[in-house]
Formats: sequence, structure tokens, C-alpha cells
Amino acid sequence: MSEIASRTASVAELAEALIACPSVTPAQGLVFDCLESQLQPLGFAVHRFVAGEPPDGPVENLFAIRKGPEGCRHFAFAGHLDVVPPGDGWTSAPFAPERRGDLLYGRGAVDMKGSIAAMVAAVRDIPEHAGTISFVVTGDEEGPARHGTIALIEHMREVGEIPDLCLVGEPTSIDRLGDTVKIGRRGSVNIWLESQGTQGHVAYPHLADNPIPRLVALLAELDALKLDEGTEWFQASNLEITDLEVGNPAHNVIPAGAKARISIRFNDQHTGASLAARVTEIAERHGCLASPIISGESFLTQPGPFSDIVSRAIEAETSITPDLSTGGGTSDARFLKDLSPVIEFGLCNATMHKRDEAVALADLEILARIYARIAGDALRA
Amino acid sequence: MSEIASRTASVAELAEALIACPSVTPAQGLVFDCLESQLQPLGFAVHRFVAGEPPDGPVENLFAIRKGPEGCRHFAFAGHLDVVPPGDGWTSAPFAPERRGDLLYGRGAVDMKGSIAAMVAAVRDIPEHAGTISFVVTGDEEGPARHGTIALIEHMREVGEIPDLCLVGEPTSIDRLGDTVKIGRRGSVNIWLESQGTQGHVAYPHLADNPIPRLVALLAELDALKLDEGTEWFQASNLEITDLEVGNPAHNVIPAGAKARISIRFNDQHTGASLAARVTEIAERHGCLASPIISGESFLTQPGPFSDIVSRAIEAETSITPDLSTGGGTSDARFLKDLSPVIEFGLCNATMHKRDEAVALADLEILARIYARIAGDALRA
Ligand SMILES: [Zn+2]
Ligand SMILES: [Zn+2]
Repeated sequence: MSEIASRTASVAELAEALIACPSVTPAQGLVFDCLESQLQPLGFAVHRFVAGEPPDGPVENLFAIRKGPEGCRHFAFAGHLDVVPPGDGWTSAPFAPERRGDLLYGRGAVDMKGSIAAMVAAVRDIPEHAGTISFVVTGDEEGPARHGTIALIEHMREVGEIPDLCLVGEPTSIDRLGDTVKIGRRGSVNIWLESQGTQGHVAYPHLADNPIPRLVALLAELDALKLDEGTEWFQASNLEITDLEVGNPAHNVIPAGAKARISIRFNDQHTGASLAARVTEIAERHGCLASPIISGESFLTQPGPFSDIVSRAIEAETSITPDLSTGGGTSDARFLKDLSPVIEFGLCNATMHKRDEAVALADLEILARIYARIAGDALRA
Repeated sequence: MSEIASRTASVAELAEALIACPSVTPAQGLVFDCLESQLQPLGFAVHRFVAGEPPDGPVENLFAIRKGPEGCRHFAFAGHLDVVPPGDGWTSAPFAPERRGDLLYGRGAVDMKGSIAAMVAAVRDIPEHAGTISFVVTGDEEGPARHGTIALIEHMREVGEIPDLCLVGEPTSIDRLGDTVKIGRRGSVNIWLESQGTQGHVAYPHLADNPIPRLVALLAELDALKLDEGTEWFQASNLEITDLEVGNPAHNVIPAGAKARISIRFNDQHTGASLAARVTEIAERHGCLASPIISGESFLTQPGPFSDIVSRAIEAETSITPDLSTGGGTSDARFLKDLSPVIEFGLCNATMHKRDEAVALADLEILARIYARIAGDALRA
């Protein structure tokens, strides 16, 4: 049993141990060894496995469970050990955690090794008889994410360990720890649009068929679409044109083809499939082809008992009443929502994915206490 | 005095001598030596000069003049000795002229060394006292054309030798020699369009400013423009969108900028400047920038005495009544029209700019006779 796994290790020490294991997506080996060494002394049965083939795999995953009494409730902590590439210009080495002043610096400090450390520390305060606790941790959340949390969910279904509630430790706080909780996320679909024509000389347009006007008309119609007005919990769905491509260097040539790409972030008024079908119908009407790739569906955990538990825990430790948000990008909660109600809450995200990523040392201790309250209440609920 | 320059050389022999001098744009040296050797025995004073600096120069040009009596009329033959690159797949070497059956093969056979040879032969039938004849021949018509015919015109102005009428020997015939004469050309302007915005993440569109919708709206408006209905002699002006460019590989990123390019071929209802101003105004209304480059203005030599001379000459030698056309691409006639009325007439263009470019041997002789009639009548007019 390692030093930091002892009951007296601080949350910061647990986080430092994880940060010290380089784990750019896809994370493997060392960082999982480290987490395993933190969980085993707490009574967890740790199952690690690798899923997927190139190009989107293999991916390492970890499912750890500490079972409570027969028939008890099951609460899951979920997250990821992989981090985005550190990039250049760090003040201290990104994988050599360093405390300067009130902050702990290192890649993953807030996204989300700090949160994982707080989850581990939280469990120390929850007796085994209180209920079943699990850790659902992947090494590929920042990457393609095809063989990470998806494979973990498959494993949990196989072994019949479906949680009643799940908390994802993404850094949802904005200005102060506790100010924002995510109760849902918008879905995301990217659609490639293509118009084909017949190449020719601009002086003889009747011998050519310019594909660009059809694409322009399609894009103008798509840009004018109002997908919805937003809902009580979601902002309006939004469509952005993200790319145009012809690649025709010849000034006097009508090109043979033209392409564009759009990205739609949508709320629970839609599904990826419904939007793909709608855009495809419009594209076909303009003589264009549409090729959609759905990145994730939207989800909403309706405000109620679970969000009340989370809000109360935050209020008790910070005196802040959190906003319940559905804004921003996607996370693995888009997959976990198929298992149980899921809410995301974690550290302040100002430095995530940036150089000199850092977490306030005090926040780590507060977050661990909030997580302990959430898990305790969730198991009693 | 070379063999082929003798009065008995056939038009085909004159053409073969020119084709045998490789002269891909910009043409220099040898091919001009060859033409000079054909013109000098006919009494021409030959002035050769080089104009321009890189990247669009230097360009070799030739102005030859055989002066008639004081106060006589001046008729100019105009053309080019440069050729487009031959490319691969020729049956015989492109710069080794070869007769097979009724045809003479070689790069430039129709565009336009064959025509230049016919002009040389035509002069042999016109006595010096009939009037002044000149040759206005550049080595850069197929290239940037900034230091070719433009420099020749400047030279002619400097020496005060302005023709009364000018015939350009471009291959205007389509199915049969004599079926088409060009009495005008449309102008051409290319306009680069640019929309600038602010890059951002598609999940946070309020923090970004997508430049693409503005460009799409601009292009939709431009595509819907009806510039005119055409005129008695011109087809309607036409606008084509020829390129789109963003170059954004990131599916979840709103790009910082977007570009497009349009090409307008316009008739004499417009000028390059009027269209540039109109598109710029529309672009600015959509928050976009427009950068026009005018390639050439339109021109029309109104059907009348000059076209009658050309038509009568063609009818006399071929029994065909030519169509008076303004279609197709641009030529150096767009510059020469500033000096005098200009008409274009030459060989059949089916093989121009293609592999195995070839001219009917019979057409060379007929064209020389047509050119002699035109020059003779033009000097008498
Ligand atoms: Zn994360
Ligand atoms: Zn030509």
C-alpha cells in the first residue's frame, strides 16, 4: 500500500500522484496503476480492460466497485484520466505537479485528475454499509471516445452493475467552485454537404454545370433555419457553417464540385437522426448530398431529487446556490445518461485545456467534501 | 534570303517553318527570326523589341511595316507566335511539322502560326502602291499578355503608325473555314470576395462571429443578379462563382475567415469598372470585401463597312456567309480595338490548345486568298 493511498493523504497529494503520470489521450498503464493503488486500499474491486482497435483504439478503461449490503443503492463516480496535449510555454513541467502559492499546477489539475482525487478522498468518508459505490473511468474522453465510456457501460451491463445515480467530475464551475452544475448537454451532429456539377470554361457556361450556386442556395436556406426557440432548460439549438471547399485555382474554370460542412448543437427538441433527415431532405431539394455524423444526442436530467442533492451539498460547503446549466460542449455524460440519471459537477474550468492548467488547493478539499455529501445522500435517497 | 521566303513558297511551307521553331509562351528568338526572314524580302521594315520585367516579362514583340504612298490607308495584320504547351500524347512531335493526308500537324498549326503564314502569303498579292501594311505580332498572347500587344500598341503610337483597320488571325472558324467571324468580344473581370469574422467554438457561438453566412448571403445575391438581357450582337453577361475557400479541418470550430471568387464575362452594356463597383457595393452591404481584377473590356466593331469587306472576301473564296459572333473567350483584340476597328478571322479551332493540333492544307491556301482580298479591299475602302 503506497504512502498516498493511506487515509491521511490529502486530496492534493492524491491529485499530484495522478498528474505525475503523463496521460495524453489515449491514457494507458501508469496513470491507471496509480488510481488502482488509491482505490484498492479503500475496498474496491478493480477491473481494468482494453477495448477497440486502431484507429480509435485500443483504449484502457477502469471499472472499480465497492459493494454495499444486498439490495442497497448504487452511486457511480465517472470521469477520465486522459488529458489533452500540454502544448508549449508552461511555467513548470506539465507532468511535474507543482504547488505555487494557493495553486497546484499540472496538466489535468482541473480536467479532471483533481476531481478524480476528490472522488477517491470522498469515499474515505462513506462507510461500506451505506451502499455500493463505483468508479467509471476511461482513458479516452478527449479523443474519439468510441471505446471508452461506451465500453465501460457495456461492461457494467454485462456484470449487472447499473448505478441508480451517476456524477461526472467534469470541471463545470466557472468563476467559483460550485457556481455551475450541468444537468444536461446539447447533442451534436456534423453534416458534410456536397454539390456535384460539370467542369467547364467560364466563357462557355452552357457547356458546364456550376455546382456552387446550388450549394450556396442550400447553405442560405440552412443558415436561415430556426430550429427551435429553446426550452426551459436549454438554449435554442444552433447551426453553424464550419467549412467551404472548392479548391479551384483556375480563374476561368467552372469547377466540377463544391463542398461545405455544418455543425449543429441541438437540445432535446431534436435527435441527431431527426436533424440529419431534415438537412438531407433540404440538401436533396437543392440537388446536393448530405453525409451526417452524429457525435452525441442531447440529454436532460430533469431538475428534481438528484439535482437537489447536488445543490444542497454545494450550498452546505460553499454557501453558493449553483446554476443548473445545459450549455457548452459535450462530455461522456451523453453516454452515461443511458444507464441512470447523470449530473456533472467539478472544479473551475478557466484553465482547462490551456497551458499552466491549475487548481486552487482549497477547492480540492472542498470538492472532496461536496462529493462525499452527494454520494452519502444519493445512497440514502 | 531563305528558300521559304521566296515568292514561290507555299503557305504550308511558310507555316511549317514557323511551327518548327518551338515557341511556348513567352515566345522568343528563333520563331521571330523566322518570321522576320519571311517579311524582309517582301519589303517590310522589321522592328523587334523586348518589353517587361519578371514575373510577366520579358516578352518579345515584332512590328513590321511596309509603307505605301503618302496619305494612303494603313491595314494591320495582328497575331501571336507563342503557343500553349503541347502536353503529351502527340502522334508526331509537336514542333516537327508533319503532313499526313490532307492535314498539317504541329503545335500552332491553327493557333496561329498557320494564320500568320497566310498573312505573309497574302501580302505577296498586294502591290506596294496599294497602301501601308503592317504586322503586329507578339510572343505573349497565351500568357499574362501584359507586355505583348499592349507594348506593341504603345510602340505604334510612339512612331505614329496607327492603322485604319486591323484583322486579328485567331482561329474563329468552327466547322468550316469561313463560318464564323468575331466582330467583338465580351469583357472579363474576376473578383475575389472575402468575409472576416472571429474564430470560436461551435458550442459557444456568441463568443465567435461566423464569417460564412455573410459570404453565403453575398454569393446568393450575386448569383441571382441578372446583369442584362443581352443585346443585338451580344449574349447576356454572365456571372459564375468559381471558388470557395475556408480550409477549416476542425469540426467544432467556427472559422475566422471565408473566401470566394467570381468571374464575370460581360457585354458592352457594362465596363469592368462598373461591374467591379456594383459587386463591391453589394459585398460591402454584406460586410464583405471585394477585390476585382479586370482582365479585359468588351468591345464591338459594329457590323458595317469593315465586316462587309471580311464577309465578301470569305464568300468569294468559300461561298460561305459567315456568322458575325461575339462569343467565346478573350483575345488581344480587346487591346487593339483602342487603335482602330478590329475584326478577328482565322482557321478552324477544333484542335486549338489540344494534342495533334492540325490544319487542313487546303484551308491555308484559301485563308491566304481571303486575307489578300480583305487587305486589298481595306486599303481601297
Ligand atoms: Zn474533461
Ligand atoms: Zn491564339
